[in-house]
Amino acid sequence: MSDQPIQHLYPEPFAQCYGCGHLNEKGLHVESRVIGDETICHFMPRPEHVAIPGYVYGGLLASIVDCHATGTAAAMATLAAGDPLDRTSIRRFVTARLDVHYLAPTPTEVPLELRGRAVEIQGRKVTVEIAVFAEGVLTVRGRVVCVEAPETFTPAA
Amino acid sequence: MSDQPIQHLYPEPFAQCYGCGHLNEKGLHVESRVIGDETICHFMPRPEHVAIPGYVYGGLLASIVDCHATGTAAAMATLAAGDPLDRTSIRRFVTARLDVHYLAPTPTEVPLELRGRAVEIQGRKVTVEIAVFAEGVLTVRGRVVCVEAPETFTPAA
Repeated sequence: MSDQPIQHLYPEPFAQCYGCGHLNEKGLHVESRVIGDETICHFMPRPEHVAIPGYVYGGLLASIVDCHATGTAAAMATLAAGDPLDRTSIRRFVTARLDVHYLAPTPTEVPLELRGRAVEIQGRKVTVEIAVFAEGVLTVRGRVVCVEAPETFTPAA
Repeated sequence: MSDQPIQHLYPEPFAQCYGCGHLNEKGLHVESRVIGDETICHFMPRPEHVAIPGYVYGGLLASIVDCHATGTAAAMATLAAGDPLDRTSIRRFVTARLDVHYLAPTPTEVPLELRGRAVEIQGRKVTVEIAVFAEGVLTVRGRVVCVEAPETFTPAA
């Protein structure tokens, strides 16, 4: 496992993302790492991230699934092309479709573990599957279609 | 259009939701209202809610789609049962599946309009379709499967 999160390789402006940009001061700071052919992310929801007291808000879960998925796509597409995971070679992906299944309520006050896998890499499109675990129990599954960010996707003037 | 947002009818503990609970001080405060057979929500993302500067973060869009959808399900299931939209009669739904399609980048610094419609009401399950517009342009579509909250879905001890 690399000690450097995938998201720390992103160039500006992607480092400003609310979900995973390390330069977004108020953001969630999702950090994903590669382990073999999987990716892993540990995330601790904030006290305010509740659906009802004791259970994590579904929109927050969708958000961390989203950013762990685009990070997974970035890493796996880069590695599949034979390139190293570094700031020069890292690809950057955006989300075309985010499909999240809530299987069970996710308890608060425990760190969540997300595991990701690129199940299809086809040209500029990478499909990623994510599983979210709370204390070892699978509570959420996501399937995310990621597309390599076009050159035209640059900060608005 | 009722002046009272659907979410203001929710009993505790649903009023604590990070996305739409009016009692969650740090939350997003999504507010949905019924207009005929549709629901409408206006939402202004915060400055930190960016994917890259100038464009709204996809996880935030998924979050507001989620809460507008469960609000739509609550209102439409209540009305379909012949009950009035008030604190006594309002149903409360949770999300089973949140499927979001990002059709175009959503610009920041403009209020977003979400429109919702219950496309299927079947027992305790309501399927809702949501469209998100930025300055009249459709940027996101969501399809959300909502399930009436079971009696057992109560705050964790």
